[in-house]
Amino acid sequence: MDEIEHNVEEREDFTGIKLRPSIIYYPKNEEEVVKIVNYARERRIPVISWGAGTSLSGHLKCDGCILIDMKYMNKILEINDIDWYVRVQPGVNLEKVFKEVESKGFFLPPDPASFFLCTVGGATANSSGGMRGVKYGSFREWVLAVKVVLPNGHVVKVGEPLRKNRGGYDLVHLFVGSEGTLGVITEIWLRLIPKPREPTETILAYMRSFEDTAFVITEMRRRKILPDLAEYIDGDIIRLLNKHLNADLKESDGGALLIVVGKDAVKDMLDILQGRTLELKIAEGEEADELYSVRAKAVLALKAESPNIIVEDIVVPISRLTDAIIKLKEIERRENVRMPLIAHIGDGNLHPNIIADTVKEPEKLFEEVGRIAIDMGGSVSGEHGIGYQKANLLKEQVLKHNGRDVLEIMMQIKRVIDPYDIMNPDKYVELAYKLMNE
Amino acid sequence: MDEIEHNVEEREDFTGIKLRPSIIYYPKNEEEVVKIVNYARERRIPVISWGAGTSLSGHLKCDGCILIDMKYMNKILEINDIDWYVRVQPGVNLEKVFKEVESKGFFLPPDPASFFLCTVGGATANSSGGMRGVKYGSFREWVLAVKVVLPNGHVVKVGEPLRKNRGGYDLVHLFVGSEGTLGVITEIWLRLIPKPREPTETILAYMRSFEDTAFVITEMRRRKILPDLAEYIDGDIIRLLNKHLNADLKESDGGALLIVVGKDAVKDMLDILQGRTLELKIAEGEEADELYSVRAKAVLALKAESPNIIVEDIVVPISRLTDAIIKLKEIERRENVRMPLIAHIGDGNLHPNIIADTVKEPEKLFEEVGRIAIDMGGSVSGEHGIGYQKANLLKEQVLKHNGRDVLEIMMQIKRVIDPYDIMNPDKYVELAYKLMNE
Repeated sequence: MDEIEHNVEEREDFTGIKLRPSIIYYPKNEEEVVKIVNYARERRIPVISWGAGTSLSGHLKCDGCILIDMKYMNKILEINDIDWYVRVQPGVNLEKVFKEVESKGFFLPPDPASFFLCTVGGATANSSGGMRGVKYGSFREWVLAVKVVLPNGHVVKVGEPLRKNRGGYDLVHLFVGSEGTLGVITEIWLRLIPKPREPTETILAYMRSFEDTAFVITEMRRRKILPDLAEYIDGDIIRLLNKHLNADLKESDGGALLIVVGKDAVKDMLDILQGRTLELKIAEGEEADELYSVRAKAVLALKAESPNIIVEDIVVPISRLTDAIIKLKEIERRENVRMPLIAHIGDGNLHPNIIADTVKEPEKLFEEVGRIAIDMGGSVSGEHGIGYQKANLLKEQVLKHNGRDVLEIMMQIKRVIDPYDIMNPDKYVELAYKLMNE
Repeated sequence: MDEIEHNVEEREDFTGIKLRPSIIYYPKNEEEVVKIVNYARERRIPVISWGAGTSLSGHLKCDGCILIDMKYMNKILEINDIDWYVRVQPGVNLEKVFKEVESKGFFLPPDPASFFLCTVGGATANSSGGMRGVKYGSFREWVLAVKVVLPNGHVVKVGEPLRKNRGGYDLVHLFVGSEGTLGVITEIWLRLIPKPREPTETILAYMRSFEDTAFVITEMRRRKILPDLAEYIDGDIIRLLNKHLNADLKESDGGALLIVVGKDAVKDMLDILQGRTLELKIAEGEEADELYSVRAKAVLALKAESPNIIVEDIVVPISRLTDAIIKLKEIERRENVRMPLIAHIGDGNLHPNIIADTVKEPEKLFEEVGRIAIDMGGSVSGEHGIGYQKANLLKEQVLKHNGRDVLEIMMQIKRVIDPYDIMNPDKYVELAYKLMNE
């Protein structure tokens, strides 16, 4: 194993979790990944892949594991002009792929806020979402196929780079979002579409209140407006963006809505917003891009405020948005804490951010927020995944919404594919299952 | 079990396969389905669900099985105006759902050609595709959640009716397209979007030749035109539509392309078609709807010609379209047979139809056509599924593209969920696996 580049060091993920791997390997190709997996399996050492460390739910926690750093497996292997896919290695930076496919007239929609930092491997393993999710969905809707080194050391391709494929049970969607627990992804085919031709406009609306915001989104749905983007940041986030990133936004307690819609829907949107805003701005072109980019950086502003943030990631049905926001406000008042809110509000995906230093029992608060989603028929994660931090909430969600058998089936699938229990063990489904049987 | 409505009769699916169930039950609700599954499991009798019998790959073949006819479980349970989903029972007719959601301003895109006959349960179990697949994908992209009676008799919900959900491994996509082999679906949540606002135009082009057609589609891709629809019928199909359904189409050996694109792409399309058509027509409104509906009925014209049709359903990469069509023509010449071609050509999904009476060894021909797809990196099924007829081709595809382990994993998943082997046994994954180990 000495021939594969390696070293020993401690690392920290984006949220500050410390990783203490026994060794870090830097494979240059699939064959080296196979060697590492075989080595790990023979010794029953846990294996975890590292893309850029932007995990937000503790997926990477690792004491004594073998960490596979994908920094050399970072190539764009093919952009297929006729079959409309891009094939990449897992370590490639997502923004790089965006730029490359855009230069060829294509569009790859899913855009986790960390797109300028994260890797395609990480976004695939986590089925990451993003701002464009309201219209285009998460990574799982864009991954056509993956190559995987299975725990047994065999290399397989799952799925096909085709728009339509009914070749057996759909295992692609099992691997997308499996958080490194089923194998090591070494190649990814992503579906591309042409850059949209429809002209859009960007509306930045400083809102009078939270309640007005929920009303606007609900009314948008009632009138059947499907936006390209519908993002929300609250007053606290606005202040942090101004403070740490000189964002030059208007400070307003009601927060701001950023909505991108087709030109034909602008009139309708302005009608809905009427009387509910403090100030409103319509942007196009570069100015619109700038607003998108400010929103994308909100989490950096938070991190600048405190290194110790717990980012929540709940989804509530849009029809329950107002109720959810009232509940969040209640918690803030009761606990006298700040939970600055960033939201992909158009799809009900809310990120209340717990600044851990300001809270006595942040984990307790974290779970309470998760339960708001469960009680409303929502989900404890929309795009950040489960890791170890949300395993208990996952268990509660499955028991309440799906039935005990569903977690049973998930766990048995884990056992089928990883009988050695070496792939990112003791997290996610495995941990939720353990908690269910305690 | 006498309290559940039942009878004994023989049936025939759409392709003429005879079904000889030992009994047919007509459950009125989920509780009755649970009783039937428990009864079947205790006696180890195979269970198969019947929606409308429009299966095209032999999914329903059944000697001595218990057939569950879903004709009473045919309700639209909820159309949610804010959360944008429709919740239905499996036995509901798909066209009925289309009409109902359209009357409320919504759009449910996936449209198998049998939409006026088939049920949502069948289309979900099969992950059916259709003409709009080129833009909107197959059923698997529209099913948010399903309720399932598992083989152990427990009722679970898999997935959530949310746009984003990272609550555990993605099992929804495992059940969608599982062809009744993992459980009995009793409720389905489908995602809705607003009726598209962008105006489109419909182009009907009678083509000079097959080669011209392949050129046009490839060029469309190269120029990054994403159509709403790109359908092809060959000269034979045109003649059958005129003969049996008075379709009033121009008879031309080169066949006809039916393309729907946004108004802004019409000029580009006409430019591509230039010099490659015999006649060309641009339609809007009712006339366009009429063309769509003629195309949708092509398979009925075929059936009127001969009850004995084997409908192929291969997918080839668009970049290999010309090669694929040359290979199909070669087979026709060599065997001196007719294989009228219907194609969702925009996504590479081809349906050469083997008129079995005209061929000596139709099954051999069927497999040869399937291998064209496998050899070109395509798929042996785009939307009709595997049933028992394509199990051997599925095996070949997996061995060539994916690796033996992939079929192993699929089979183990079947065993995990259905250890009693009562759910539509001896077909699909199970049969492919058997063939692999022979």
